[in-house]
Amino acid sequence: MNEGKMTVLGAGLSGALLSTLLAQKGYQVQLFEKRSDPRTFGLEEGRSINLALSYRGWSALEQAGLREKVRDQAIAMRGRMMHNATGELSFQPYGTKEQAIYSVSRLGLSQLLVEEAEKAGAELFFQHRCEEIYLNRGEALIHNLKNKTDTLAQPNLLIGADGAYSTLRTAMQKTPRYNYSQSYIEHGYKELSIPAKDGDFAIEPNALHIWPRGGYMLIALPNADKSFTCTLFLAYEGKESFAELNSPTDVNRLFESQFPDALAVMPQLTEEFFQNPTSDLVTIKCFPWSRYGKNVLIGDAAHAIVPFYGQGMNAGFEDCRIFMELLAEHNHDYAKMVEQFQELRKPDADAVAELALQNFIEMRDLVADREFLERKKMEAELHRRFPERWIPLYTMVTFTNIRYSEALRIGQLQDCIMGKVMKHYNYASELTDQDYERIVALLDDE
Amino acid sequence: MNEGKMTVLGAGLSGALLSTLLAQKGYQVQLFEKRSDPRTFGLEEGRSINLALSYRGWSALEQAGLREKVRDQAIAMRGRMMHNATGELSFQPYGTKEQAIYSVSRLGLSQLLVEEAEKAGAELFFQHRCEEIYLNRGEALIHNLKNKTDTLAQPNLLIGADGAYSTLRTAMQKTPRYNYSQSYIEHGYKELSIPAKDGDFAIEPNALHIWPRGGYMLIALPNADKSFTCTLFLAYEGKESFAELNSPTDVNRLFESQFPDALAVMPQLTEEFFQNPTSDLVTIKCFPWSRYGKNVLIGDAAHAIVPFYGQGMNAGFEDCRIFMELLAEHNHDYAKMVEQFQELRKPDADAVAELALQNFIEMRDLVADREFLERKKMEAELHRRFPERWIPLYTMVTFTNIRYSEALRIGQLQDCIMGKVMKHYNYASELTDQDYERIVALLDDE
Repeated sequence: MNEGKMTVLGAGLSGALLSTLLAQKGYQVQLFEKRSDPRTFGLEEGRSINLALSYRGWSALEQAGLREKVRDQAIAMRGRMMHNATGELSFQPYGTKEQAIYSVSRLGLSQLLVEEAEKAGAELFFQHRCEEIYLNRGEALIHNLKNKTDTLAQPNLLIGADGAYSTLRTAMQKTPRYNYSQSYIEHGYKELSIPAKDGDFAIEPNALHIWPRGGYMLIALPNADKSFTCTLFLAYEGKESFAELNSPTDVNRLFESQFPDALAVMPQLTEEFFQNPTSDLVTIKCFPWSRYGKNVLIGDAAHAIVPFYGQGMNAGFEDCRIFMELLAEHNHDYAKMVEQFQELRKPDADAVAELALQNFIEMRDLVADREFLERKKMEAELHRRFPERWIPLYTMVTFTNIRYSEALRIGQLQDCIMGKVMKHYNYASELTDQDYERIVALLDDE
Repeated sequence: MNEGKMTVLGAGLSGALLSTLLAQKGYQVQLFEKRSDPRTFGLEEGRSINLALSYRGWSALEQAGLREKVRDQAIAMRGRMMHNATGELSFQPYGTKEQAIYSVSRLGLSQLLVEEAEKAGAELFFQHRCEEIYLNRGEALIHNLKNKTDTLAQPNLLIGADGAYSTLRTAMQKTPRYNYSQSYIEHGYKELSIPAKDGDFAIEPNALHIWPRGGYMLIALPNADKSFTCTLFLAYEGKESFAELNSPTDVNRLFESQFPDALAVMPQLTEEFFQNPTSDLVTIKCFPWSRYGKNVLIGDAAHAIVPFYGQGMNAGFEDCRIFMELLAEHNHDYAKMVEQFQELRKPDADAVAELALQNFIEMRDLVADREFLERKKMEAELHRRFPERWIPLYTMVTFTNIRYSEALRIGQLQDCIMGKVMKHYNYASELTDQDYERIVALLDDE
């Protein structure tokens, strides 16, 4: 039994998982959330509907004993299904046959985690908004939106899991010499859908579908109800942008020419296009993540990233896993624990932010590039021959718990080596056993 | 005669110069400043007392016909005077004999520019604070701090020259997808002084004095009254930091061991050290600099930088020069003009921010390094032989109007070439005529 009192702000995915983990270890947890309970009300408008869960996320869920329960809701996606402009398909596996990423419903996962937090003993307060933060005391003034009363939360540690527009971080931003950046890409996104067809999936369910078109792209992830949620990523302004799509005719014209096979299975396209919001894509960085050792940021509050590597939720869950490990190590010395947490996680948060931005280029552009595909084949073969020595970047990020910062560093090294290889070879089929030996040996030279 | 109405927020150096330039061209200018008139009151506490004016600054002053008047207040600094820990001196010229940077008093220059703005016909309002910005209309609500009345400024263009903590930028930061970053270095600074000695300068007046000590440094710039203003740059925390200097004994001990020759001419050191504030060093980046074409940021409001290249004021003045050029070009199409202004200046603002951060390393560390000095000699010789083809980075930044972004790019190229040269040669004296020919030819290869 643990005597520590923890206040968690935000019952999003990271906040609910961390509350579960803390309550399971015997901490007294109070979880405050300004929205309504997701178990009775639905999803907030404009938030993405499904997410890709990968190794880092599973590791943290495992720690909470939730792997099986979440697995029951999840659909395996074993690779990318590429759609070209004439509707031709090509499948690129993510890794070995056993390796997959999993499409999960944000709402379903949110409901499950909130339920588990409560079962583990956390006290949940929905429709409670944090009004004021007293940083140096680690306290928060909480306003009950239902009966309009205020309470003062006075925990041993105040945890801000309150998302990209975090109240706790906003309070920190007012302290001296606070480092902060918010950086938007030129693209926005809009969610659309492919409904089930004759009671079944309209397209292959065990894949993440991509329609890469250079400056923009469409993707689709499967849902348990046999529909797909599609996301259109498109620039806000300029040629081929949301600004150019002002009528159903404009939208249909774009889909007819660029996504004809998707259009064929999207009967509600134009209605959805004009009903659903267009959302921003932001990278938020800040430091420190704690002031006075009495509080700490985790998840999007500390490091919001763009969604192109499918790592936003996974990075937040990894925060929770590492948070619990450090907590066990430092026992009740919270100030020391949060200092170690931010020192350890900040380089990884910066790395995954960078990786996520890079992967947009890869997804919308390179995945359709012949040279890129041959390079992928060579790297897959290198990994098959030297499973410990050459792990492709995507594999490191998605199918291991290797630190993001380490994955980024090794990935840059591999990139440099493969750049040289691609000057000499056009096709993976040209490479001999000796070539592969030589390539992997280059890792040691650098 | 020009019909345009311009409202300038902030009568700092850039705001006052731009107001002068605009009024000279016949624009109706209203300049609002929350502080008191610098001609009757003095300088705000904690702001640096003197500044280094270089080519870009002079170009803008020239445009306003103010070169001679400012020259009368300025003291030429023809190079760096390096002080080692035993008080030995070595002089490194900045360029040719004619090339110098100029120490000017911030207060003196501020008074002169405010006076010139008024003479040129600008209406000046001191102790008037901007309370509210209406971005889409380009309007500002101004509060008179003396008689507590409000007025609404309704110009054709609202110009935010209101510094690193700009009110106009704060309003922009609340608009969708606004890119913003504030990044502090670990060092702070404190101003100290070397008074005149027997009615004369206590140390060489025509130089910028540097006491480089690796992790920290002291510098001194001459003043017209034969004193020097010194600035101590030191980390806030850790070993050798402001946090470690808690008593006159601590301060004296540091100066005795590290700056003995400075200590000998600083009779008020310990009093000043504990009286004067310690100030932060921040880099602020943002984009766009205008919303709805009705307003625009210039100077520190758009791009606050660290002071290590002496380019903060110069970059602000260059903004003013380019602003006036674009205004002439676009006549009354302010929306187009501010769009061009931000497109043109943003890469240069980012570049000078980067250059300023890099130069801290150079000033506090490399200037005392043998290899670095030999490299400087080689580059000076390259410039002498090929004055158009090889212009050292410091020269491009300080003694030309070459775009900062271009200077940074060429500087990186030169850095790469000199890195290779320094692998083969230890001393400038080893290089032959042919070597110099070969080195400069490398510029074309890249």
